[in-house]
Amino acid sequence: MDKILRIDVGADGGPKATTDPVGDYAGLGGRALTSAIVSKEVPMACHPLGEENKLVIAPGLLSGSIAAMSGRISVGAKSPLTGGIKEANSGGQPSQVLARLGYAAIVLQGKPKDDSLYKVFINKNGVEITKDNSLKMLGNYDVVEKMKEEYGQKIACISIGQAGEMKLAASSVAFTDMELRPSRHAGRGGLGAVMGSKGIKVIVLDDAGMAMRQPKDVERFKEANKRWIAGLQGHGVTGQALPAYGTNVLTNIINEAGAYPTYNFKEGRFAGAAKISGEVLAEMETKRGGLATHGCHSGCVIRCSGIYNDKDGHFLSKQPEYETVWAHGGDCGIDDLDTIAMLDFLDDNYGLDTIEMGVTIGVAMEAGLLKFGDGKGAINLIKEVGQGTPLGRIIGSGAVVTGKVFGIERVPVVKGQAMPAYDPRAVHGIGVTYATSPMGADHTAGYAIASNILGVGEKVDPLKPEGQVDLSRALQIATAFIDSSGMCVFVAFALLDQPETNQALIDLVNAFYGWNWTADDTVEFGKRVLKMERDFNVGAGFTKEHDRLPLFMKTQQLSPHNLTFQVKDEELDGVFNW
Amino acid sequence: MDKILRIDVGADGGPKATTDPVGDYAGLGGRALTSAIVSKEVPMACHPLGEENKLVIAPGLLSGSIAAMSGRISVGAKSPLTGGIKEANSGGQPSQVLARLGYAAIVLQGKPKDDSLYKVFINKNGVEITKDNSLKMLGNYDVVEKMKEEYGQKIACISIGQAGEMKLAASSVAFTDMELRPSRHAGRGGLGAVMGSKGIKVIVLDDAGMAMRQPKDVERFKEANKRWIAGLQGHGVTGQALPAYGTNVLTNIINEAGAYPTYNFKEGRFAGAAKISGEVLAEMETKRGGLATHGCHSGCVIRCSGIYNDKDGHFLSKQPEYETVWAHGGDCGIDDLDTIAMLDFLDDNYGLDTIEMGVTIGVAMEAGLLKFGDGKGAINLIKEVGQGTPLGRIIGSGAVVTGKVFGIERVPVVKGQAMPAYDPRAVHGIGVTYATSPMGADHTAGYAIASNILGVGEKVDPLKPEGQVDLSRALQIATAFIDSSGMCVFVAFALLDQPETNQALIDLVNAFYGWNWTADDTVEFGKRVLKMERDFNVGAGFTKEHDRLPLFMKTQQLSPHNLTFQVKDEELDGVFNW
Repeated sequence: MDKILRIDVGADGGPKATTDPVGDYAGLGGRALTSAIVSKEVPMACHPLGEENKLVIAPGLLSGSIAAMSGRISVGAKSPLTGGIKEANSGGQPSQVLARLGYAAIVLQGKPKDDSLYKVFINKNGVEITKDNSLKMLGNYDVVEKMKEEYGQKIACISIGQAGEMKLAASSVAFTDMELRPSRHAGRGGLGAVMGSKGIKVIVLDDAGMAMRQPKDVERFKEANKRWIAGLQGHGVTGQALPAYGTNVLTNIINEAGAYPTYNFKEGRFAGAAKISGEVLAEMETKRGGLATHGCHSGCVIRCSGIYNDKDGHFLSKQPEYETVWAHGGDCGIDDLDTIAMLDFLDDNYGLDTIEMGVTIGVAMEAGLLKFGDGKGAINLIKEVGQGTPLGRIIGSGAVVTGKVFGIERVPVVKGQAMPAYDPRAVHGIGVTYATSPMGADHTAGYAIASNILGVGEKVDPLKPEGQVDLSRALQIATAFIDSSGMCVFVAFALLDQPETNQALIDLVNAFYGWNWTADDTVEFGKRVLKMERDFNVGAGFTKEHDRLPLFMKTQQLSPHNLTFQVKDEELDGVFNW
Repeated sequence: MDKILRIDVGADGGPKATTDPVGDYAGLGGRALTSAIVSKEVPMACHPLGEENKLVIAPGLLSGSIAAMSGRISVGAKSPLTGGIKEANSGGQPSQVLARLGYAAIVLQGKPKDDSLYKVFINKNGVEITKDNSLKMLGNYDVVEKMKEEYGQKIACISIGQAGEMKLAASSVAFTDMELRPSRHAGRGGLGAVMGSKGIKVIVLDDAGMAMRQPKDVERFKEANKRWIAGLQGHGVTGQALPAYGTNVLTNIINEAGAYPTYNFKEGRFAGAAKISGEVLAEMETKRGGLATHGCHSGCVIRCSGIYNDKDGHFLSKQPEYETVWAHGGDCGIDDLDTIAMLDFLDDNYGLDTIEMGVTIGVAMEAGLLKFGDGKGAINLIKEVGQGTPLGRIIGSGAVVTGKVFGIERVPVVKGQAMPAYDPRAVHGIGVTYATSPMGADHTAGYAIASNILGVGEKVDPLKPEGQVDLSRALQIATAFIDSSGMCVFVAFALLDQPETNQALIDLVNAFYGWNWTADDTVEFGKRVLKMERDFNVGAGFTKEHDRLPLFMKTQQLSPHNLTFQVKDEELDGVFNW
């Protein structure tokens, strides 16, 4: 990981690759690296689909090593959805493979001369870029099938579906899992559209002949990794709940807490929640010959993923995540797992963010386009996105555009990005994160649910404003470091509860790079990342007025707690006063 | 004009009218009054279609008097298009009539309990509000026909078409002219959607039995009005060019100057311009039995309006304004006046801003939805808006949404509002106004074309950045006063060139209100209005980064001068340093 691959898609004669030493960006990885490159090289006022924007794909600091959980990859750019800086990260295999190939980042830059599509193949011998218009308007699953035929089974793929090609603002970048399913996504912020605007359909990675990345201090690294794995496996969330039920273990928990946004954020509890819970999902998966426990990348010890088969035992989709089950489920009043899994598959195949899509369909339901609970209607709507009809393009542009086009007032977004599966009126800590994260409404940017609901780390009452700003601040800082390390964000549960596991992570980084970081250093690192991101957003026109939840959350109470969001604006403005 | 009519559309049992004294708002009119009410009463962070927004309709300070040109009316709200404060003003009869009925403003506020439509009738006896769902999805022309049947021929109407009912962000508020055509529009910023969100379809005004508003000093007022009229009639623009050819006199002039945005702001000169010029238009109108010279409200002495008949001599539309001829013409590569007049009629009937619609179709053409020059396609597209198809709703939501949905980078907007008919790269002064006006891209907010191109007032070279900031600043301040006076903005040509005509306007205000204002006082008044508006926008999340032209104007040269926009960001930031 000592070099950066840049592909100038506007070069004469087609995209041209150059490889440079990592230079000033040394010591950065994942989110820290994508945000550093975007901050430094992308004009803040540029059009997200224009020549000046860059798409940066970067493995984490520890990716490609033997460290458990280190397979997370970051994608960064100026976001077509929010208009601000964006880092979206994903699991899957490409992070490990790209890191082992020695690349700290791939940067797609420039503006294509025409509308041809290209594929990029990277292996130990270098980089090959080929025009391939036969890939046009293929879904991610079909693209990967073609790549397997051409390059064999031992590859990892980064691709976009039809949505990214159409430059829709809710489009994702897909990453293949260990079995070459394009089912892991850098979903948020429309980064698939930026890849589409560069005319690159797929990046194929093959690390045959490359070795595992070697730490500076091999023995210390191995030893730290043992403590690291033991810590993760010893924690209730990462060692038991997530492996058994996946992220969808949250459905019953959040619904019980009265924080489950239902019918486009109108109510806080969904009558059909039990039918789509993680417990039911796992049982159904096992019964149908799928998998309830599965890892999305090599080296994963949490294994929260799974395989969802249809009633005849055929693959339908990967196990839908909690956020997807909620977005296409409760938020739309849909309580049928087969429908939700089909929507999940369509989103993955077209290359769409499931959160943005679910929330957008909820808004469309409020507009009367279809009824709450209409699963078939929801499937048809997502199919329209894949087909690029005018209605499909509206939906594929996300909740804000859909709300605007249909004149709907209740549009649950911050900085133009749809809110995930926790209503801030009943979980105040996550509301602070939604409001203030430079990413827009993003639960992963500072997952206050851990403390507010799950009782991980300190317990902060979710129904009260007190303590939420401090909680969100600490989590956002910690997350900025985790998102840079290459570690899956779920490690945070163990980090928050177990100081020795936190130390194990720091020891891993130190042993790998020969550093002497303390916990304070990781905090300073996280702050630096957040500051870069916020500075970019200021230049892109963001102010404290954008660090706010939509007004309806202050004026409309949410049942069953009948609360509005209580954290004051002045408090929100203090999140980044450290 | 000593009272304000407020209609609470959310009252139990349907909209309820109350009339209060003007109170703290005394001494304000037109834009100053709409902006004051919006600033003070509308939460800056509210949703433009929500309960908290208010639609304010206010005649100018001199409206309803015998003063020539005093028939301008202002509409204000938080804009669904820009997200900032908005004042859009219009000619037509309602300003004079509403002023004579004694109302300084009508304020529509609250949120309807259901989706019923209401009509409001105001005469000397008071206010009558009636539910009338037979008006649903009628165009403005049909609505006015129904009102004539019900209330007779001596009325004036303020209405919305289908676009406002659908709450589309490019929808206008229509005002009838002297012959009861709903052909004058407060077009910009989607204020029709705010009226639609309040469930009010039409406001019918009847001033039978009401007298002309009387000045404090009748003789002084009459004498000043004579000087005022003489000044207007003695100036080349207001006394000759505008009466003869209407605003479309500009087509040849701006095209010759190389500042005529063509093919979605790709080029600065249109080969078909001569065919759609004001000279050709006037000749065609006269030949077909229309009118080349016509006033839109009583008391107008400039008479820049007209009547456009089809080839069989039947009314097709009012004479399309220069901005409309350009937006639907050159910007879309259309050089046929019948097509443009049909588009003008459809926009007026559906209640759409012709500038936003033309620019949006240009963006759609760039996206390949239809070809540049395809007049039939453009007509069909506007008809889709009226029908509310998904594609129509995209187009009716304006250029930004259309650009986003179709992934187009060149979207000529500032603060979300489409640019009018002058390319900033060839007329730098208007670029400063577009960039910095609190209204978004709006030529009327500080019409630098006067000095840059027409040589009115001081001459400032349009192709250079020098002097443009001072020019735009002075014009924006002067315009904020004119927009509050009730005077048509076209009086500015005479004001800029003839100090004695400027004095006549001040004398009119002083004689009417018993004030002793100097020219400096009108400047201070204009600054106060601008400051209110800018303060609102800060609270709505605007920063200096929003006071910018889109980046492509700094990077892509415009032919034939092959210039980019040269005014530096730091200079733009100085526009409001007075």
